[in-house]
Amino acid sequence: MKPIQVGLLGIGTVGSGVFNVLQRNQEEIRRRAGRGIEIAMVADLDVARAKSVVGDKVQVVNDARAVIANPDIDIVIELIGGYGVAKQLVLEAIAAGKHVVTANKALLAVHGTEIFAAASAKGVMVAFEAAVAGGIPIIKALREGLTANRIQWLAGIINGTTNFILSEMRDKGLDFDVVLKEAQRLGYAEADPTFDIEGVDAAHKATIMSAIAFGIPVQFDKAYVEGITKLSSADIKYAEQLGYRIKLLGITKRTDKGVELRVHPSLVPAKRLIANVEGAMNAVVVQGDAVGSTLYYGKGAGSEPTASAVIADLVDITRLATADPEHRVPHLAFQSNTLADAMDSLPVLPMSEVVTSYYLRLRVADQAGVLAKVTGLLAGAGISIDAVLQREADEVGGEGSTQTDLIILTHDTREGTMNDAMAQMQALPTVLAPITRIRKEELN
Amino acid sequence: MKPIQVGLLGIGTVGSGVFNVLQRNQEEIRRRAGRGIEIAMVADLDVARAKSVVGDKVQVVNDARAVIANPDIDIVIELIGGYGVAKQLVLEAIAAGKHVVTANKALLAVHGTEIFAAASAKGVMVAFEAAVAGGIPIIKALREGLTANRIQWLAGIINGTTNFILSEMRDKGLDFDVVLKEAQRLGYAEADPTFDIEGVDAAHKATIMSAIAFGIPVQFDKAYVEGITKLSSADIKYAEQLGYRIKLLGITKRTDKGVELRVHPSLVPAKRLIANVEGAMNAVVVQGDAVGSTLYYGKGAGSEPTASAVIADLVDITRLATADPEHRVPHLAFQSNTLADAMDSLPVLPMSEVVTSYYLRLRVADQAGVLAKVTGLLAGAGISIDAVLQREADEVGGEGSTQTDLIILTHDTREGTMNDAMAQMQALPTVLAPITRIRKEELN
Repeated sequence: MKPIQVGLLGIGTVGSGVFNVLQRNQEEIRRRAGRGIEIAMVADLDVARAKSVVGDKVQVVNDARAVIANPDIDIVIELIGGYGVAKQLVLEAIAAGKHVVTANKALLAVHGTEIFAAASAKGVMVAFEAAVAGGIPIIKALREGLTANRIQWLAGIINGTTNFILSEMRDKGLDFDVVLKEAQRLGYAEADPTFDIEGVDAAHKATIMSAIAFGIPVQFDKAYVEGITKLSSADIKYAEQLGYRIKLLGITKRTDKGVELRVHPSLVPAKRLIANVEGAMNAVVVQGDAVGSTLYYGKGAGSEPTASAVIADLVDITRLATADPEHRVPHLAFQSNTLADAMDSLPVLPMSEVVTSYYLRLRVADQAGVLAKVTGLLAGAGISIDAVLQREADEVGGEGSTQTDLIILTHDTREGTMNDAMAQMQALPTVLAPITRIRKEELN
Repeated sequence: MKPIQVGLLGIGTVGSGVFNVLQRNQEEIRRRAGRGIEIAMVADLDVARAKSVVGDKVQVVNDARAVIANPDIDIVIELIGGYGVAKQLVLEAIAAGKHVVTANKALLAVHGTEIFAAASAKGVMVAFEAAVAGGIPIIKALREGLTANRIQWLAGIINGTTNFILSEMRDKGLDFDVVLKEAQRLGYAEADPTFDIEGVDAAHKATIMSAIAFGIPVQFDKAYVEGITKLSSADIKYAEQLGYRIKLLGITKRTDKGVELRVHPSLVPAKRLIANVEGAMNAVVVQGDAVGSTLYYGKGAGSEPTASAVIADLVDITRLATADPEHRVPHLAFQSNTLADAMDSLPVLPMSEVVTSYYLRLRVADQAGVLAKVTGLLAGAGISIDAVLQREADEVGGEGSTQTDLIILTHDTREGTMNDAMAQMQALPTVLAPITRIRKEELN
């Protein structure tokens, strides 16, 4: 049988990885897929660089539409990124009857509903394992491996840049700005790291997983997003003393009222496996009602790890293309005609309705009665305290200091209640700096 | 569309879990599968107990063949276990044109080749996610999620009973026999625990994963199998002092000469994620050439975790039944007509050809020259030493003791070479007891 013909739009880091791995492992991949898989055409604005990757035997063009228009192409891989031209090209490829593979989390988190609807109408597949957690087959696990389960929650380290930065801050006791520069030097952070360090990239991925876990449409606009830029090495150190590590988690959770969808730094018990995921690695914990807790770990980015996921999608499409379209694995795990109803019954909750526990750090005047005042305010708001850590003033501010840090761990509290209590504490004359608040997740 | 009709052979712990989870989550499962999934008929020798689980609406019989003969049944789930009647019934179900789901690792590890050939000839699927690592979707990850990769090795904690025992031995400093009794009392070990503690169960699972990882037939008869019954709490303590944990690992590895397939206790660096998998939990690390290292963690046994995997297979079959049979996911990941050739090019190696590193514990006379003699023998055999730990005689044998423990970590060595060197060391008059040898795996 003729190899399945693939067109590649954009051949940068990931695209080169896809080409190289397909070449290197072509024999094993053919034995698995039952059919060869061949990159037949590549579109890239930099034709010369593209040719240097793929050689003379593959046609290289600078116009993506020439790939889409080629009737021999069965599958189009979109590796351009972003919401603009990538969206247009994906929709055009679908309209031309091509199956699409993409690693574009931003595109799917924001425009997934439109794209999946177009694909369903045309009877083609849009596959996107590479969009979340690189080479870890987490989309497949959620969409196929755990289909028996009512998913209760999932929480993931799904951005390698920020996990690298947090690992380094903890290991070396350095502050965020210093480590960010090092990460940029080592290639773990981009020149403009905003999407990573502000949590946007993780929120794109959490949005996609949330839809697949709960059978709701992608709703990125309703995600709560908080990055790691305000974390200090002091918080990491205090967390450690209390038995926790700080990780940037993407969390989505089913509650009686609706779905939580949030990305923010989180204290995680140090004994949890996911708390020990270091450097640029990714991991996702999924809690299902039948299976219990499962964890998936691996490289979340990079040329060949991401290519691993892209090619797995190519093999899946090769295997599944002959199936009756309405019996293929649904894009978002659940049959698409059931998603809208679920959105009504399972709305994404505003952050003020989220219930979690908290780490609070207050810079306070080192004088009698401060602790009583603060804990009194919390008690008045109905917030119950799990632990208090009070540092000696000398330790915190040096000898003769008149300021100290007061660290409080709370039990579960509604975020709106905590917001009000924090405003009251902040107004105390003995609270000398903006209060640091980090959410705490037990993940058990 | 009419729900897909499922017949269940054997409704014990796992069967009850399958029935209960299918009932409880039927709405979500239907939304995922695009079609209802219904247990329509159950066969069990204990009809009364079966009826107490499934109620009046499901037909219960004591003859499994009545289920297989029922033309309305689309899928047969085999949960009887063992190689005997289970094999016959699976083959009869296939012959009757039913798809089969089974959790029977022993059956597939030993008779998989015959069963998969029968299924392929008949155009039906045999699905077995539940056969390895319970609810963790590791078969799916290997067979579909990592299809881009040349798998280099995998290593797994794939028997919960033994991992529970090893965790308890380490935690509490207790010996094997004591902990085994506790595990039996708690239901973590069977009344006859032989298959678990002797490594046979893990070897069944490793055999299946080996076939899927490397595209070779199942070859249980060539697996090296060593259990945990000879481990002492002293070895666990010494390993800890050297920075390692002892785990019973199922390992399969591609080398230039062939495939290693082995189950035995292993020292694993304590900092590896898998070294921190405690209690009855399972985890598998898979190393692929493109994706690098990935890890999968979860419950490896139990009613609902195993049911999670069985039902995932039911959903897969429901989704895939309409696909052209030769394009469905192959049973062992690779097209079946390519397996025999691979067996020739990738033979399973005898244990003497395996290359790994070692932990040796020698009970020796506490006198001058013993260490020099032992290390001299190792040097003569070309075995290079990584570390030596020598205990004070008083610590080991009590005050005035004339014996002590000598612990040696080696670098990579061929097992046959090590066997010869051990025979020589054992013959030394100053070596006072059988030498303990535990293999060491860096897993990086």
